[in-house]
Amino acid sequence: MTPAGTARSHRESDISMTLTDPQPPAAVLPSSGTLRPVSAADVRITGGFWAQRQEVNATASLRHCLSWMERLGWTANFDRVARGEEAPSAGREFADSEIYKLLEALAWESARSGDAWVEETFRSLSARVVAAQQPDGYLNTRFGGPGQEPRYSDLEWGHELYCAGHLIQAAVARARTAGRDEFVEAAIRLADHICEAFGPGRIERVDGHPEIEPALAELYRVTGDRRYLEQARLFLQRRGTGTLDHGEIGPEYFQDDVPVRDADVLRGHAVRALYLSMGAVDVAVEDRDAELLGAVTRQWRNTVARRTYLTGGMGSRHEGESFGDDFELPSDRAYSETCAGVASVMLSHRLLLAEGRPEYADLIERTLFNVVATSPDAAGTSFFYVNPLQRNAPGTEAETDRPSPRAASSQRAHWFDVSCCPTNVARTLASLSGYVATTSDRGLQLQQYAEGTIDTRLASGDRVRIRVETDYPWSGTVTVAVEEAPGEDWTLALRVPAWARGRARIADATGAERVVEEALAEVPMSAGELATVRLELPLEPRLTLPDPRIDSLRSSVAVEAGPLVLCAESVDLPAGTSLRSVAVPADAAPAAMADGAELAGVHVHEGEDPWPYGPAEAAEPDREIRIPLIPYHRWAERGPSEMRVWLPRLPA
Amino acid sequence: MTPAGTARSHRESDISMTLTDPQPPAAVLPSSGTLRPVSAADVRITGGFWAQRQEVNATASLRHCLSWMERLGWTANFDRVARGEEAPSAGREFADSEIYKLLEALAWESARSGDAWVEETFRSLSARVVAAQQPDGYLNTRFGGPGQEPRYSDLEWGHELYCAGHLIQAAVARARTAGRDEFVEAAIRLADHICEAFGPGRIERVDGHPEIEPALAELYRVTGDRRYLEQARLFLQRRGTGTLDHGEIGPEYFQDDVPVRDADVLRGHAVRALYLSMGAVDVAVEDRDAELLGAVTRQWRNTVARRTYLTGGMGSRHEGESFGDDFELPSDRAYSETCAGVASVMLSHRLLLAEGRPEYADLIERTLFNVVATSPDAAGTSFFYVNPLQRNAPGTEAETDRPSPRAASSQRAHWFDVSCCPTNVARTLASLSGYVATTSDRGLQLQQYAEGTIDTRLASGDRVRIRVETDYPWSGTVTVAVEEAPGEDWTLALRVPAWARGRARIADATGAERVVEEALAEVPMSAGELATVRLELPLEPRLTLPDPRIDSLRSSVAVEAGPLVLCAESVDLPAGTSLRSVAVPADAAPAAMADGAELAGVHVHEGEDPWPYGPAEAAEPDREIRIPLIPYHRWAERGPSEMRVWLPRLPA
Repeated sequence: MTPAGTARSHRESDISMTLTDPQPPAAVLPSSGTLRPVSAADVRITGGFWAQRQEVNATASLRHCLSWMERLGWTANFDRVARGEEAPSAGREFADSEIYKLLEALAWESARSGDAWVEETFRSLSARVVAAQQPDGYLNTRFGGPGQEPRYSDLEWGHELYCAGHLIQAAVARARTAGRDEFVEAAIRLADHICEAFGPGRIERVDGHPEIEPALAELYRVTGDRRYLEQARLFLQRRGTGTLDHGEIGPEYFQDDVPVRDADVLRGHAVRALYLSMGAVDVAVEDRDAELLGAVTRQWRNTVARRTYLTGGMGSRHEGESFGDDFELPSDRAYSETCAGVASVMLSHRLLLAEGRPEYADLIERTLFNVVATSPDAAGTSFFYVNPLQRNAPGTEAETDRPSPRAASSQRAHWFDVSCCPTNVARTLASLSGYVATTSDRGLQLQQYAEGTIDTRLASGDRVRIRVETDYPWSGTVTVAVEEAPGEDWTLALRVPAWARGRARIADATGAERVVEEALAEVPMSAGELATVRLELPLEPRLTLPDPRIDSLRSSVAVEAGPLVLCAESVDLPAGTSLRSVAVPADAAPAAMADGAELAGVHVHEGEDPWPYGPAEAAEPDREIRIPLIPYHRWAERGPSEMRVWLPRLPA
Repeated sequence: MTPAGTARSHRESDISMTLTDPQPPAAVLPSSGTLRPVSAADVRITGGFWAQRQEVNATASLRHCLSWMERLGWTANFDRVARGEEAPSAGREFADSEIYKLLEALAWESARSGDAWVEETFRSLSARVVAAQQPDGYLNTRFGGPGQEPRYSDLEWGHELYCAGHLIQAAVARARTAGRDEFVEAAIRLADHICEAFGPGRIERVDGHPEIEPALAELYRVTGDRRYLEQARLFLQRRGTGTLDHGEIGPEYFQDDVPVRDADVLRGHAVRALYLSMGAVDVAVEDRDAELLGAVTRQWRNTVARRTYLTGGMGSRHEGESFGDDFELPSDRAYSETCAGVASVMLSHRLLLAEGRPEYADLIERTLFNVVATSPDAAGTSFFYVNPLQRNAPGTEAETDRPSPRAASSQRAHWFDVSCCPTNVARTLASLSGYVATTSDRGLQLQQYAEGTIDTRLASGDRVRIRVETDYPWSGTVTVAVEEAPGEDWTLALRVPAWARGRARIADATGAERVVEEALAEVPMSAGELATVRLELPLEPRLTLPDPRIDSLRSSVAVEAGPLVLCAESVDLPAGTSLRSVAVPADAAPAAMADGAELAGVHVHEGEDPWPYGPAEAAEPDREIRIPLIPYHRWAERGPSEMRVWLPRLPA
């Protein structure tokens, strides 16, 4: 079994699935693809990095989000509409979507933990939403009511279909975890209304913010009603044909410059681009549209090669919260919105299922550990909205008693005026077990490493139960014990991240070890065999250099340890030392430290020239300095600080 | 006479001036300062670089601006208001200011050339403006009329006082060049209204966009009415105290975060920051307020040392059109708005007059040649709004038949939705002779080099007439012939830019040459002596390296020639070669070429990695390549192209 042969076998197999009711609670459930998702219900994350975050999410973040939305009147918007009252809507035009993302998180969490408060909160909150639905299915607290602008009068910025999409996604999660309830039925009525209002010959336009596209495709998967898939396809086909009024911001922002099928790279508003791509994959998979799927994989490939941060973060520009040009990846002005990280995970997961290629799971891991995990603090009640790789000035403490501007704070903030990120993190953590593994006809692939159990069926229908023991990412040892094995020969595959290939070692049931060069370490398993397999991933800190075309990173180095990007914070430097004045020698090599690393650096550049350009460089080191490095996801836990992922490297 | 002694003598002298009516047509006319402005009427630029641009401005740009504003209905706004009609205003909320900046340009141009069309256009256009004035002096086409929002109901974004400031500046130019006319009287009525409406105990707030501050200070200089100076001072004192509602954009954008007197560096929206600083200098000079003046010079110094591009451009961020952090100076995302360049010239000119330090004139020269001269095309009918130092993709041709988004075009555009830059360039070119020279008690200082004549009086009252012969910046030879000399000994001083010091040579009337190490080459002149002095400035192209704290420029080089920044354009590379794939060897040295230079470079980085970060740098040169360099101000004259000022330098 050669690696090449392995990859081919994944590409050639094509797993067809039957829609069932109730559906398995998978984060996304395509009806075909190279790999099949493992239901979130089949995976229990029982300890370690992600279990801790799921617990904090369940016990703190969900309540935190709800209490802010109650306090700011975003939930009361629904009550007001239900009563038919004329009053200004609280919050921004997309505030409804935050309630829906919280409902989605609650739906997943209720299924995960069975917590009574979570279930009761889902029921009561979803009932308030349903009560605001109009008789014809329309549901939005900001348009169409007394004293409000008419429905669909501002498709560019009104976010009506965006909000509807999030409602439908929440209902999809509910349908998959609990079956059809009143909320799911309301989502179906809303989807029916949208198909009516935006069908052929009606409003032949799109929403300024994609989201309805994957939502309708997923609702099709839940209901089997092809109208939703067709409407999703229509929205996709219309985008790129200029049905929006772009104003000064231009068509690229809305991905309305080029049809999805013709684009080569993600561009414009990053979250919009990623949500749109999710919808395109969903439609392509259901339509068996290889050209459309190929268009998205091409865009993913070019985006990952040229427009993605070391953290996995996407979106280089504050202006328009958008992707930049190729290799435009400034560390300090990185927008790298938390929501773009969430969306990137959802997109890559779809592509992983469709195509089976491990690089999608590699990017998911990188993004989960370095973007999604970076946003919330340890308490789960403060969040980063933007995730720059460098902070040039310590900044100030975040607001605690009122919403923070989304991109201004140097510290995690409790809530934002545009507060899309906290609820997006919440729904991701609550549904995280759905990303851990995949199955194929005769194989189970461990895509992400977390302590826990998987008890599922291969696509062939054979049951398999395994236990994963690991303290990843703090330890590189992953032990997989097969506790129940299929009745036929099968293959257990463990993803080996790109940075580990050639250095990872796998030991099979006999204890025989080998170095893994390939992206999936496949262990052939015999029918009924209850074996234990051990993967050793090399976590020692390593130097990483940038593509020389990235101007902002030229002659700089970063340090990574396993899946974690590390960073330096000025709070760890001698008092009064700025990270601006620190560099590392050409032969720098990181030393491992507890939960991080350390670089021997030098202090330079204390001069203050009246003009910063001249005939000579003035970069004389004046003293040696130790540079402690911590995991990037833990930065800003100790108050305002300068921070750098990339450190300048002195010439040899 | 030592250089140190010279500098001291400049700082210690303090020239007081008497307000006269009509005033000399100086671009700005402080009543005290180290140096005195030379009236624009006393300077004729007769040939060369700037004469050509003044001619194009007079014959093409002024008509171009007028015709676009007629076509878009911005001028007709005034006619509608004069008729008392209710109709929506054309253009953005600051459209009035464009008419006023055109009027200012026309006023200067009428005085410069005496052109009949220019004078007639000033009269007819100003009459339309005056006709729209309300009985109480208020004048704005967007507020306060039937069906419009009330006056001063949106100080943050309404731009009413900003527009008023530009009207007053136009009236100041008219008063100084032609005396008081109906338009000047209208400006005085408007200023009186503003003093009434915004005086103590009335609306104690400021405008979101500074401009009224320098305008009122200058109107005080024209009229002698201290109310205007007092109102300017009030506006300055209020800024930084939070009288504006900042919303999500925050107080820094409006310079409302810190009082002017307490700030250390320019920040927020660049044009706002610079206009505000102009007003602060004007008030400080009139009040003999050394602390306030010191605050602005401190901010100028820190801004020039840490927040200014090689071109002199200011404003690192598209978002908020704002300054960035210290050393945040990305080439590709440089905003470097043309208007910020114009404002920087006006601010530095004020500081030059106040303090006499040559670095202000150095920055004026750099900014005129590399920002102001870059904006218009050779025909004077297309303009850059933003002036990045790098363009990563060729982009597309600009719109020709409709206004372009301000920051989107890769090419100069005929007009913009926000079209502040064309009229700002026009008024600068029309008044440019005011920046050429200054005088002191017993000296004349040549601050900028252009072929022409200066016929003026020293501050002592002695007349001096000189002729300047030069083809600068294409030739470094500047010959100054004294054609009429004062009756007492005096000093002719020629500014030697920082890049020329130690290499420039000056020859006095006897032909005796010496190398100039200092910033002002002073030539003692005897009473009545009609001598000729010759300055030789070294224009051969030179390598420039960046401060290592500028991340985006690390290990990069630029080439300058005299005051000109040079750049590479991909249209000059072999077909299919991207500037992304070009670097220069560590020992690169530019060779002079006609109107530019050339670097021997190498072609690198053709690879396409799926992930742009890894354990090794892949920057192997694969072939040698010649990199032609042209003056930056001439880029994009040959269609869409990649462009770079800074080129990566390979390690030694």
